[in-house]
Amino acid sequence: MSLSIRLHISSNLGLNFHPQTTVRRTNHSTSIRPRPIYHSNPLAPTLLRRAMSAIPSHKSSSSSSSSSSSSSSSSTIKSSLIEPDGGALVDRVVPESERAAKALKAESLPKVGLTQIDLEWVHVISEGWASPLKGFMREDEYLQSLHFNCIRMKDGTIVNMSLPIVLAIDDEAKERIGASQDVGLVGPTGDLVGILRSIEIYKHNKEERVARTWGTTAPGLPYVEEVITPAGNWLLGGDLEVLKPIKYNDGLDHYRLSPQQLREEFDKRQADAVFAFQLRNPVHNGHALLMNDTRRRLLEMGYKNPILLLHPLGGYTKADDVPLDVRMEQHSKVLEDGVLDPETTIVAIFPSPMHYAGPTEVQWHAKGRINAGANFYIVGRDPAGMGHPTEKRDLYDPDHGKKVLSMAPGLEKLNILPFRVAAYDTVGKKMAFFDPSRAKDFLFISGTKMRTYARSGENPPDGFMCPQGWNVLVRYYESLQAEDATQQSAVVSA
Amino acid sequence: MSLSIRLHISSNLGLNFHPQTTVRRTNHSTSIRPRPIYHSNPLAPTLLRRAMSAIPSHKSSSSSSSSSSSSSSSSTIKSSLIEPDGGALVDRVVPESERAAKALKAESLPKVGLTQIDLEWVHVISEGWASPLKGFMREDEYLQSLHFNCIRMKDGTIVNMSLPIVLAIDDEAKERIGASQDVGLVGPTGDLVGILRSIEIYKHNKEERVARTWGTTAPGLPYVEEVITPAGNWLLGGDLEVLKPIKYNDGLDHYRLSPQQLREEFDKRQADAVFAFQLRNPVHNGHALLMNDTRRRLLEMGYKNPILLLHPLGGYTKADDVPLDVRMEQHSKVLEDGVLDPETTIVAIFPSPMHYAGPTEVQWHAKGRINAGANFYIVGRDPAGMGHPTEKRDLYDPDHGKKVLSMAPGLEKLNILPFRVAAYDTVGKKMAFFDPSRAKDFLFISGTKMRTYARSGENPPDGFMCPQGWNVLVRYYESLQAEDATQQSAVVSA
Repeated sequence: MSLSIRLHISSNLGLNFHPQTTVRRTNHSTSIRPRPIYHSNPLAPTLLRRAMSAIPSHKSSSSSSSSSSSSSSSSTIKSSLIEPDGGALVDRVVPESERAAKALKAESLPKVGLTQIDLEWVHVISEGWASPLKGFMREDEYLQSLHFNCIRMKDGTIVNMSLPIVLAIDDEAKERIGASQDVGLVGPTGDLVGILRSIEIYKHNKEERVARTWGTTAPGLPYVEEVITPAGNWLLGGDLEVLKPIKYNDGLDHYRLSPQQLREEFDKRQADAVFAFQLRNPVHNGHALLMNDTRRRLLEMGYKNPILLLHPLGGYTKADDVPLDVRMEQHSKVLEDGVLDPETTIVAIFPSPMHYAGPTEVQWHAKGRINAGANFYIVGRDPAGMGHPTEKRDLYDPDHGKKVLSMAPGLEKLNILPFRVAAYDTVGKKMAFFDPSRAKDFLFISGTKMRTYARSGENPPDGFMCPQGWNVLVRYYESLQAEDATQQSAVVSA
Repeated sequence: MSLSIRLHISSNLGLNFHPQTTVRRTNHSTSIRPRPIYHSNPLAPTLLRRAMSAIPSHKSSSSSSSSSSSSSSSSTIKSSLIEPDGGALVDRVVPESERAAKALKAESLPKVGLTQIDLEWVHVISEGWASPLKGFMREDEYLQSLHFNCIRMKDGTIVNMSLPIVLAIDDEAKERIGASQDVGLVGPTGDLVGILRSIEIYKHNKEERVARTWGTTAPGLPYVEEVITPAGNWLLGGDLEVLKPIKYNDGLDHYRLSPQQLREEFDKRQADAVFAFQLRNPVHNGHALLMNDTRRRLLEMGYKNPILLLHPLGGYTKADDVPLDVRMEQHSKVLEDGVLDPETTIVAIFPSPMHYAGPTEVQWHAKGRINAGANFYIVGRDPAGMGHPTEKRDLYDPDHGKKVLSMAPGLEKLNILPFRVAAYDTVGKKMAFFDPSRAKDFLFISGTKMRTYARSGENPPDGFMCPQGWNVLVRYYESLQAEDATQQSAVVSA
């Protein structure tokens, strides 16, 4: 057994990052990585103390489970707020003691190559975001997901499962696999990632998958064009085992807290309510208003310590979305500027790729957060929506997301908090909840409008976003323009 | 209160139809119409006695509930085999005593016109095939149907509801309705059909509806092209009241037994198992083999009196399907020829229109039969399937129908009996279950092949279909050709 406790100090992205523990054990269900906690300076000492105070308890918990048995310590770490789907968090990371043997085994198997997005799904499955899913879907799971957005467990309970989490292979790979029961999974950079066991190969009817997932087959859906269309005509299901935790080495891995780590953090903070906010855009003051107001409402409801999980999506996004590293920097500024209270906020990355599948996808976004221990979920206008790829309208009815979410099978235990609409109040000169009685005072600043401001170097109205956060965006768009200009001049000189 | 008992004798379609009772009462939940029972001649006296013996009990049941209260007599009539979805059969036919007043009310309301297919759905809803649905879907029901193929009831139970049962209206009708809470429904021939109460109007996103229902948006889906594409851009939901039972006056109304009538019939026959066979094609000896074999299996399982519900779909079908009247005549010949045993068979019409939506639709077909009291459902290869409208392949994976059906939420209480594949055994010279060990002896005769035989006047192999049944098809295709020839000569002479 190997046990190491390291103090880890980082201050990347210009935010203050606290020393945290890294506990690595042979324990298969626990792999505790650094835990990022944003803070504004005045609160730093408090948070530092709180974060540091976690070390002894983790130490003792890992010491007390120093045998190779893995279940004891994971059962000591639980959040009481909401049960993971299926009753227990899935963890498909091979215990360190078995890694060498598993790697040898994987080497001996027929190989299947993973794309970067396949690897993001491997990450998602391996940490239990999709609990109780233990691997890429077999046909029974796929069909239930596609037709019912939920899966019936052996005991008759229903868990939500709205997006097909599948691995596509082509004819050549199918041929290569032959009659093998297991396959080795190879990452996009050629490294052996894991094993898929007791596999099943079935047809990948892309048209049907797309139609049932997106409610359209119009050309131009980003995930379809970039992921599904180029993929093979077979799907490969089976139980996943990953040889070690998935890392990206992009300077953001410390934000990638697993559901288990998040649950530990909520317990450590003695949260009695956790409200998750999914986002893939920069945080403006309207979002902040909403999140702060949600906390106020939860306190009014009698909760003593509601914690915000600010949970940006970190997997694949479409080309014109703001990239993850820029968003993370922007989010850090929002906390540094004191717009959100670091005392009651946890910022972490949700590692899932984005489908832009509206009402179908918002269920996945909510379900993933159940597994991470959040018992409240904030849902906005048109969640996971986008413009119709070929028509001048929203792809989804902006109200359908929250309606579908509120009725979705398997999500009954989650409290859904509908988003109140915030807009820029030109009289109050700040973001405020829209008041229809003085509609003309309000200015709606869309994502497109926001990008136009940032791109043109023009400032948005005062109070739209905290200044430091805004600067991050301006710098990003400036860098894009510089890149464009370079390419342009390269073309001209060619 | 008006009570009439009429003896009704009919022998249309060349089959012997037994005198039956017609009981009309003020009772809102019971409207007993003629009950057709096919028979081969040797059994006629027995069946006649059994059918006639029902009269006294119905008489006494209606006498005992001679007050205007409607619930007492309906509670005396129940089948114990399987509960209707939601616990009670929906009956949306206005009691006769209230009809005049309701008709006046309907007259005073804004009117909405129904197409023939809308009327078929009115029929379906009014008799409780879609129980617990009480009218055309409101948005909550529609979204659940579209996304989950099931609806959650107030008490938390789940009922299956895979097809959107909706009423489309255009901008003009929406305008006309204005702020009215209720609307009058006008049939395709201009007669007042009923009322839709506490209405809700919401958007009809046809693309999304089609994609999620069919799993494709390819042009050429019959129901889409003929029903959805020409329909309005709004959907109108609400609670239905029909002024009187829907009749078609096509000589086939006596086959249109309501779920309540079927349940009564099953009880009268003391069925301890009812197995439903959905079809929209002529019955060949392979079907008959399957149905007879199913009965044998049920007897082996210990059931004493399994009854077959031979239940052809009677609503909209695509142009190249065999029309309902021809199919009913063909089915009657199959029973006359003794291929199926009339003693243990009930033939009735399932009034639903056909979507050709494969795995999504087969759930509806099964669910409707639960409401009619069937506790076993036979599912075949590629149920409700058809060829892909633009590609050279089946639209659905032929195995998906039975897989999806077996996993569908809300259908757990139904016993699914997978179809064994029958084909023509060229050695045994009869339809037999396919034996892969001597595959070369078997001839698969597809619907297309069958139609080619019938159209060309060529006989199929001996034993494929009973001779009388075959003649019905030959005559039908001859009449089509004669029609074609007439049209052809009309074109030439024009």
